[in-house]
Amino acid sequence: VDTIDFFTPIEGQLSSVEHMMRAQAEDRQIDLSNALDHLLSAGGKRIRPAITLLVGGLLAGDQNKLITLAAAIELLHTATLVHDDLIDGSLLRRGNATINSQWTPAATVLTGDFIFARAAKLAAKTDSVAVMQLFAETLAIIVNGEIIQLFDRQVQPGLDGYKNRIYAKTASLFELCTAASALLCPVNNQVIESMHWFGRNLGMAFQIVDDVLDYTGESSQVGKPVGSDLRQGIITLPAILYQIENPADPAMLDVISGNDLSDSRFDQLIEHIKDSGAIEKCYEIANEYIKASQQSIMGFPESTYKRSLLEILAYIIRRRV
Amino acid sequence: VDTIDFFTPIEGQLSSVEHMMRAQAEDRQIDLSNALDHLLSAGGKRIRPAITLLVGGLLAGDQNKLITLAAAIELLHTATLVHDDLIDGSLLRRGNATINSQWTPAATVLTGDFIFARAAKLAAKTDSVAVMQLFAETLAIIVNGEIIQLFDRQVQPGLDGYKNRIYAKTASLFELCTAASALLCPVNNQVIESMHWFGRNLGMAFQIVDDVLDYTGESSQVGKPVGSDLRQGIITLPAILYQIENPADPAMLDVISGNDLSDSRFDQLIEHIKDSGAIEKCYEIANEYIKASQQSIMGFPESTYKRSLLEILAYIIRRRV
Repeated sequence: VDTIDFFTPIEGQLSSVEHMMRAQAEDRQIDLSNALDHLLSAGGKRIRPAITLLVGGLLAGDQNKLITLAAAIELLHTATLVHDDLIDGSLLRRGNATINSQWTPAATVLTGDFIFARAAKLAAKTDSVAVMQLFAETLAIIVNGEIIQLFDRQVQPGLDGYKNRIYAKTASLFELCTAASALLCPVNNQVIESMHWFGRNLGMAFQIVDDVLDYTGESSQVGKPVGSDLRQGIITLPAILYQIENPADPAMLDVISGNDLSDSRFDQLIEHIKDSGAIEKCYEIANEYIKASQQSIMGFPESTYKRSLLEILAYIIRRRV
Repeated sequence: VDTIDFFTPIEGQLSSVEHMMRAQAEDRQIDLSNALDHLLSAGGKRIRPAITLLVGGLLAGDQNKLITLAAAIELLHTATLVHDDLIDGSLLRRGNATINSQWTPAATVLTGDFIFARAAKLAAKTDSVAVMQLFAETLAIIVNGEIIQLFDRQVQPGLDGYKNRIYAKTASLFELCTAASALLCPVNNQVIESMHWFGRNLGMAFQIVDDVLDYTGESSQVGKPVGSDLRQGIITLPAILYQIENPADPAMLDVISGNDLSDSRFDQLIEHIKDSGAIEKCYEIANEYIKASQQSIMGFPESTYKRSLLEILAYIIRRRV
């Protein structure tokens, strides 16, 4: 799937989003400005701004406000990544050096804070109390999720815990994209509610596929070793489903207890998980979320926006990186 | 001056602010909840919430919104302190252990982020777009100031640089207290503009006195050695005024160049600054800000709120801690 396909109806606006994000540090301290450039140049596929703009197009919202919202959300996402990488001690993200690999913790914290502040300023520029409230609520959900993960690392989640975790980590931000976008459009509460679920279900599927790719992806493409989550003691859906079917596997029990495993035991456990049918079951669950997400927009008349949103749903399941 | 005096007209509301702040982590992760309790128990005189509520009383604003705003601002202040202490590596604040002295950088960053998020949520609860915009703008000013200080540590500010720095660090938040409070009250733009200047000038004086107390305070009361700013290479108003009068003092030039000084040379330089008349000049400048601040509220009819605000202005100059 070529990601450029679903960007077509909003290419112009996406350029404006890009420009607006980069403008946030232009008149600022030069190291900071360079850091923001580095972060944004390295930065992903802009799937969050794209979804924000496409929902806004579907619901005929004000272009300028939607562009501002999309920039605010992508900056919020960028800020959380800067602090995340510091927290995890990650040196690379998508093959690029992280801020914390090059700067002190002090500079990294402040860079993240600066990007948060600019994201909040842009969110405030939408002039919508409801958007700002949702923005603040989403930040609280994301940070709360990270705190639970950091402090309660030993408490391994079952299925429900996993769902809560990926909602906080990923789906809440996609929900912000779609619901805040709807809040800027001339639509009723029922449509806004549908858009909440559209983004939330899409985000749940997105993170499940992400967690599967950690097992199945080419390590050269994903940029980290196969099974890196499990090797760090992070138990995601493939391992949870494997554990349900194989409750007595001693290697899995050791991981759950936080015991150290040799590399070869990890290699073997990861192979067992991949061969167990857990990956296929993960895709079934992701597909259920995608179907629920499709339902939220099926009722709208055909348009390039709707087509692109459906293409994004298909892309989320099929992507290999 | 007994600080309790000026709290009298708003004692009940201050209790509500305290309660609201502590409630922000009640249903959350237990370590986080304890950390917030620790921070708030250790925390200061609540002068920012007091000023917010007193201005709101003076201008007859809605009580519930003012309480929410005051809690949001004090939490924003608390969050910046958590990240500041991490950045400076401070182990104590007001004689209490800092979060970063007890936790990892990761946990400290997230605790600050969590408090930011809750502050933003409360700010959004005021239902005022203008308040939220000012809130976001203030966060951006504070963080930008910290970034300049961190990255451009070698660039020593003259008087203008100093004023920019203390505006970003301190006065901008006092300006938020008074201006956002006015935005929640039934007043015209001229009053809102006056309240901007009231808080800004008050905050400038507050920080100048703070910087003087670093030279003149009892180290047991201030909680750090006399002249600790200068010993860390931070050149505040007393040293700036001294340098203007004594441009060739070699010890001062060494500090400006970032050279290491022995403790005894520092001791001597600090004594020279204290004996130079610079401290008295600092108080004159602080007094000018206080007078400008008084002017902003002199026109209002007498009330307990006005009296308390004038007492706070007097307290800011006279305080010894």
